[in-house]
Amino acid sequence: MFENVISIKDFSRKDIEVILREAEKMEPIAAGMESSDILSGKMLGMMFYEPSTRTRLSFETAMKRLGGDVVGFADTGAISAAKGESLADTARMLAGYSDAIVIRHNLEGAARYVYDTVDVPVINAGDGSGQHPTQTLLDLYTMNRFFGSISDLRVALVGDLKYGRTVHSLAYALAAFGAAMSFVSPPELRMPDDIIHDLQGGGLEVNETEKLEDVIDDVDVLYVTRIQRERFPDPEEYSRIRGAYRIDRPMVEERDLIVMHPLPRVDEISPDVDSLPQAMYFRQAFYGVPVRMALLKMLIKN
Amino acid sequence: MFENVISIKDFSRKDIEVILREAEKMEPIAAGMESSDILSGKMLGMMFYEPSTRTRLSFETAMKRLGGDVVGFADTGAISAAKGESLADTARMLAGYSDAIVIRHNLEGAARYVYDTVDVPVINAGDGSGQHPTQTLLDLYTMNRFFGSISDLRVALVGDLKYGRTVHSLAYALAAFGAAMSFVSPPELRMPDDIIHDLQGGGLEVNETEKLEDVIDDVDVLYVTRIQRERFPDPEEYSRIRGAYRIDRPMVEERDLIVMHPLPRVDEISPDVDSLPQAMYFRQAFYGVPVRMALLKMLIKN
Amino acid sequence: MFENVISIKDFSRKDIEVILREAEKMEPIAAGMESSDILSGKMLGMMFYEPSTRTRLSFETAMKRLGGDVVGFADTGAISAAKGESLADTARMLAGYSDAIVIRHNLEGAARYVYDTVDVPVINAGDGSGQHPTQTLLDLYTMNRFFGSISDLRVALVGDLKYGRTVHSLAYALAAFGAAMSFVSPPELRMPDDIIHDLQGGGLEVNETEKLEDVIDDVDVLYVTRIQRERFPDPEEYSRIRGAYRIDRPMVEERDLIVMHPLPRVDEISPDVDSLPQAMYFRQAFYGVPVRMALLKMLIKN
Repeated sequence: MFENVISIKDFSRKDIEVILREAEKMEPIAAGMESSDILSGKMLGMMFYEPSTRTRLSFETAMKRLGGDVVGFADTGAISAAKGESLADTARMLAGYSDAIVIRHNLEGAARYVYDTVDVPVINAGDGSGQHPTQTLLDLYTMNRFFGSISDLRVALVGDLKYGRTVHSLAYALAAFGAAMSFVSPPELRMPDDIIHDLQGGGLEVNETEKLEDVIDDVDVLYVTRIQRERFPDPEEYSRIRGAYRIDRPMVEERDLIVMHPLPRVDEISPDVDSLPQAMYFRQAFYGVPVRMALLKMLIKN
Repeated sequence: MFENVISIKDFSRKDIEVILREAEKMEPIAAGMESSDILSGKMLGMMFYEPSTRTRLSFETAMKRLGGDVVGFADTGAISAAKGESLADTARMLAGYSDAIVIRHNLEGAARYVYDTVDVPVINAGDGSGQHPTQTLLDLYTMNRFFGSISDLRVALVGDLKYGRTVHSLAYALAAFGAAMSFVSPPELRMPDDIIHDLQGGGLEVNETEKLEDVIDDVDVLYVTRIQRERFPDPEEYSRIRGAYRIDRPMVEERDLIVMHPLPRVDEISPDVDSLPQAMYFRQAFYGVPVRMALLKMLIKN
Repeated sequence: MFENVISIKDFSRKDIEVILREAEKMEPIAAGMESSDILSGKMLGMMFYEPSTRTRLSFETAMKRLGGDVVGFADTGAISAAKGESLADTARMLAGYSDAIVIRHNLEGAARYVYDTVDVPVINAGDGSGQHPTQTLLDLYTMNRFFGSISDLRVALVGDLKYGRTVHSLAYALAAFGAAMSFVSPPELRMPDDIIHDLQGGGLEVNETEKLEDVIDDVDVLYVTRIQRERFPDPEEYSRIRGAYRIDRPMVEERDLIVMHPLPRVDEISPDVDSLPQAMYFRQAFYGVPVRMALLKMLIKN
């Protein structure tokens, strides 16, 4: 069905639905309730040129719970060891040791370049300001798992919509499903015009606002992202804006919605939200495992 | 039977005896003589915020020899990657990927805090100046394995009895078994009064001395710990004291006792002791594997 | 048959032939076409005191594809953790957790020292300017795999023949098979006289030259190594020499030979060679897996 996972734009709505169904079957294995050996003897090559905790560990967990294993590098020490060797040569070497490669890199396009170089399937675990398709798939899985559907949802993307690769990919994917979206951000961090233009070109109605209260009564999903200090020259401006988009308990406890976040959070969501049924972000992180299991099975097993 | 291993004080003598019996059954698997898949598909989440070689590698070995696997972090690079994320959030994330968590942390109480936060069993691999219960269990296992019993033993704890969390935990556990203890240390590094008081409160007779020769003819176990240079402002004083507690071949080769050490040693035990049958410290390190196997099986399997 | 892999000189031609045959049986498992559990429950202890990517990852892959697993350290963080502990103590500890040890160390003789210290088989993954026997075995395997024999081959060793431990070991091994060798290097980087003397003592005819064109029409194998900048005080001299030994497409595309390289390469081989059938270096890197599988099986299983 597919031989790489480079960009979410390469996947049709139907492709995504097949992946989400496969992921649902993986859930008992991901939770340690059932054991599996469908990837027994198989190896996933890991090339992590940038720090990553969640993405890396959930790929490792997915592979190992399916009876496979991982080999590769994920720390600066190992990377300095490869000093002087080209990305292509390192990739060819690792492809010789493994049945698929997952790569995170600081440069956009690195994943596709590696895919063009080697003979094994390649998964993009985030390249520069480019794509992070497995994050988008687990975000979609979380919504579908909770609501049973994506196309009917009303989703508010909140926070830094300018720099976050996560929200860009997610917006395209939600558009493909026909979900209604609101973009909630300070003016400095608006969703880029070219993306809004793309989405409107697809016939989608886009709702933009600076104020969370404009949309909070009309959404099913609050998708919150971090606003980074370094985006603001003025610390007071940063402080004011950060406060304006902070999610706290009174905002969500009486409402019929779920709160998502790609994590790690700093203080965009108050800890007193964690124990509410609306808090879906830790569950969402766990869902990274069955979704990545489904992808690994489809890429390696077949 | 139990859902965490946070402090040795939570374990009754009977609990400990059950663990030691289970560990004995694990020995052939730990030694690679038999293979096992009782933890097949299970994952141990590892949160090592402090350097550790022996403890970390023996947990890894225990899990992998039982057919399971590990996921997590054990280096400063990975820790910096998690920068800005709270201990609770990191623990919740990792708990989503694993069936139990083992944590080493520089702050006392960290293990119990994590246990209160997550839904999976938690094992304390050392938290600050607090507890290191799996070390104590392997120490007890070593004594019981060699002598067939703990309650009849006469154990001398030697060296730095003030700062070593290992000897504090061990003293409480030996007291629970009714073993006779001698504390041998320089005055600056005496066993703290509150611990001695606790032990005496339990009806135990405590023997304290500065001189190894006072007790060496009347003990079954010499449990030696390192005296660290940084405890002494005066280098000559350090040098004098270090020499006074150094174990060498003539001291042990004619005596009916065993020498234990939590390792790593620097020069508390002369290398010419290593080949004597009394030298039990490398065997003791190996016993960390079957003991941790027993704990992992009891926490995860059941 | 053997209990360690410390130096290629310890292996007879017949020993090597047995290893190469065993490795050939391992190829489908190494390529992920078949799965195996012959080392299920077995652990390989890894002591990597120097950076290594290819050697370390191929040992890991070999062990894991055979159903076993690895434990140990391969980064500077872990090494600093072991600070103050002797190499012997660290090795004894790790030997308690594993069924064999593989060590890379900056000091020649370290592997044999560890073998004399512990009770498990030891594999040398490179010690200082000493031996790197598993590299030599995979080099021989590559030649034998392609040509069906080694004794009839004409092999040119090209580049830095003075400092490269790889070419020294390989020269001895090729001599044992009776292969014809040419040494192609700048005068500053000639094969050391004592090695040439050893080889001639075995009745071997040795052909030395500075010019690649003297031999290129009469060889089956071009074995290329890196010429390091730091060997030359004068950057222009380095530049001139580097250019003179660079392999490019016109040099090989019409010739009936294969190009090998231990990797990583910098620019000793032009990237436009990569797609030629003569380019064997990535295949050679892959062959590290079946060869190491054969060694691990022979050392651990039996």
